[in-house]
Amino acid sequence: MTDTLNIVALKEEILKGNKVALAKAITLVESNKPSHRQMADNLINALLPYSGNSLRIGITGVPGVGKSTFIEVLGIGLIEKYNKKVAVLAIDPSSNLSGGSILGDKTRMNVLSTKSEAFIRPSPSRGFLGGVAHHTRETIVLCEAAGFDYILVETVGVGQSEVAVSAMVDVFVLLMLPGAGDELQGIKRGIMELADILVINKAEGELLNKAKEAAQNYQMAQHLFPNKSNNWITQVVLTSALNNEGIEYVISLLEKFKTVNTENGSIQSERSRQNLSSFNELIRGLIEKVIQEQLVLSQLRIELESKIEQGIINPYEAANLLVNQLKVILKNS
Amino acid sequence: MTDTLNIVALKEEILKGNKVALAKAITLVESNKPSHRQMADNLINALLPYSGNSLRIGITGVPGVGKSTFIEVLGIGLIEKYNKKVAVLAIDPSSNLSGGSILGDKTRMNVLSTKSEAFIRPSPSRGFLGGVAHHTRETIVLCEAAGFDYILVETVGVGQSEVAVSAMVDVFVLLMLPGAGDELQGIKRGIMELADILVINKAEGELLNKAKEAAQNYQMAQHLFPNKSNNWITQVVLTSALNNEGIEYVISLLEKFKTVNTENGSIQSERSRQNLSSFNELIRGLIEKVIQEQLVLSQLRIELESKIEQGIINPYEAANLLVNQLKVILKNS
Repeated sequence: MTDTLNIVALKEEILKGNKVALAKAITLVESNKPSHRQMADNLINALLPYSGNSLRIGITGVPGVGKSTFIEVLGIGLIEKYNKKVAVLAIDPSSNLSGGSILGDKTRMNVLSTKSEAFIRPSPSRGFLGGVAHHTRETIVLCEAAGFDYILVETVGVGQSEVAVSAMVDVFVLLMLPGAGDELQGIKRGIMELADILVINKAEGELLNKAKEAAQNYQMAQHLFPNKSNNWITQVVLTSALNNEGIEYVISLLEKFKTVNTENGSIQSERSRQNLSSFNELIRGLIEKVIQEQLVLSQLRIELESKIEQGIINPYEAANLLVNQLKVILKNS
Repeated sequence: MTDTLNIVALKEEILKGNKVALAKAITLVESNKPSHRQMADNLINALLPYSGNSLRIGITGVPGVGKSTFIEVLGIGLIEKYNKKVAVLAIDPSSNLSGGSILGDKTRMNVLSTKSEAFIRPSPSRGFLGGVAHHTRETIVLCEAAGFDYILVETVGVGQSEVAVSAMVDVFVLLMLPGAGDELQGIKRGIMELADILVINKAEGELLNKAKEAAQNYQMAQHLFPNKSNNWITQVVLTSALNNEGIEYVISLLEKFKTVNTENGSIQSERSRQNLSSFNELIRGLIEKVIQEQLVLSQLRIELESKIEQGIINPYEAANLLVNQLKVILKNS
C-alpha cells in the first residue's frame, strides 16, 4: 500500500458506498506501519460522524453448527426482502493454528458474496486476542460509514474470541446444535450467558425432535442466567438454515431488539460503555508494549517472574521494582 | 506505629509463633506509609522461606448462611481433634457501605477466639477490591511463618470479593442455604464454579429435607461446570454448623484435597500461577496510580473519555494520546 493515500478521496468514496474503497480502508486500519496508523486515525475520525447507524450483530457457534449457511440465508433474506445492505466480518482465532482461514473454503456464502448489497471480509486473526480487536471495531465504523445496515461479526465458538466479539456488538446470536440429551454442555456457560438470541440450527429431518427438546431445555435453563442490563430476555429459536426455515423469525427478533433497545437508549449507552472499556484496555496494552519493547525492562521482568516462581520475592515488591525501573527508563529515553 | 521497628526481632518472634508480634506485622503490611512499606517488604522477604506450609482455605457465602458458626466449629475441630493451629482472616467488602465490620458483632467465634491455637484478624476492607488484596496475600505469608496450619480467608458472598479471595487460596469452600426450589439462583454461577467444596449449611430440623433436595440438585448441576485444572470434582456436603454435624466430613475433604493436590503438584503450581498473576495485576495497578496522581494526565483522561462518549474520537487514538502524554510527563518529572 502506498504511504500517500488520499484520505479525503477515500472518505468520499466510502460515504458513496464504494466497496473497493472500503476494502482499501480496512487494509489501512489493519496495517501496523506507523505512517498507515496516522492515516487510519485521520480516516476513522473523519468517518465517525457518519457511523453508528447499523445493527451490530455477533454470531458464533462451534464448527459444524452451520454458521456459513445461516449467515448466507440471513444475509440474502435481509437484502432481498428488506432491501438492506449487509456486511460480514469473519474472525477466525483458530486459523493461526490450523493454517486455514475461516473463509478459505470457497463454497462458503457463494450466493451472498455475489450480491452487490453484501460485503464479506475476513479479519486477520493474528493477534486478535492479543489486543488488536480494535481493528474490527474500526472496520465496523468504516462499514457503517459505507451505508451497511447490518454488520455481522462472525467468530468460531472455540474460546475467548466470543467474549471479545460480544464486547463490540449490539446483539449476540449463539448457534447451537441439537444435542444428545446434554445440550447444556456443548458450549461454555459463560458464552451462553452472552447470547441475546439462542438459535438451535439444523432443526430438520431426524434432528427435529431433538432440536425441540433442546429448545425446551434451554428455555427452562434461562432462569439460571443473570438478567441483562437492558432487560432483554434471551430468545430461543429453532432454525433450519439449510431449508431456510426460521430465518424470518430471527430477522423479526433482530428488528425487535433494535427497536426496543434504541428506544430505551440501551444500544447507545452500551456502545459508550464498550468504547470506554476499549479505551482502558488499549491503554493497558500500550503500556504493556512499552515494557516489552524495552530490553532492560523485559529482562528484569523475566528475572522477577523467575524469582516469584522460586518463592524468593513477593509479587508486590517485584511489581514495584519493575515500575520504578520503567520510570527511570522513560526519563532517560 | 514507630518508624524504627526492629524487623529482625519481629521476624524471630513471628517464627516463634508470637501472636502479638504477628498482629504488629500485619498492621505493618497494611500500612500505606512508604517507610512502613520498605520495612514490610524486608520482613516479608525474610519470612518467605518459612511460608507455604499451610492449607489456604477460602470460605464464602451470603449473609445469614452461618459462616461464623461454621468457622467456629471447623476451627475448634481442627484445634481440638487434630492439634492444628488455625488463623482466620476476615474480609468484609460491604463494611464501607454499612459502617459495620464483619467482626463488629462481638458474639462471633467467641469460643474459637479464646483458643491459644487460633488467631483471628479482620482485614480492613477499604480498597480491597481496588487492588490492595496483596495485603491479605502478605498476611497469609506472615501467618504461615508463625506456624499456622490452616489459614481460613473469610469473605461475604456479595460480589467480586470471592473472586479475589479464590485467587489467593488453595481450596474454595462455598456455603449455601437450603433454598426453596430455585437453589441454583441464590448466588452467581461464576462463584459456584469456583467452589471446590459446596456446603449446604443449616441442614437441620425443618430445613433438612430441603437441604437434601438442594444437595441433589447441586450434584446434578455439576456437569454444567467446567472441569478444574487439577481434576478435583466439587464435593457437595450437608452440614449443621449449629449442631456440629458434617464438620468432620468437611475436615476429611480438606485433608484429602491437600494430600491429593500436594502429591500431584497442583497446589504448588497453582500458587506460582497466582503469584505471577498477582505480579501482573500489581504492575497494572501501579501504573494506573502513576496516571491518577498526575494532574495533567487525569485531566486528559477525563477529556478523552468525554470525547469518546460523544463519539468524536475513537478509543484507539484516545489511548495513544494518553500514553504519549504519560511518556512526556515521566521524562520531565
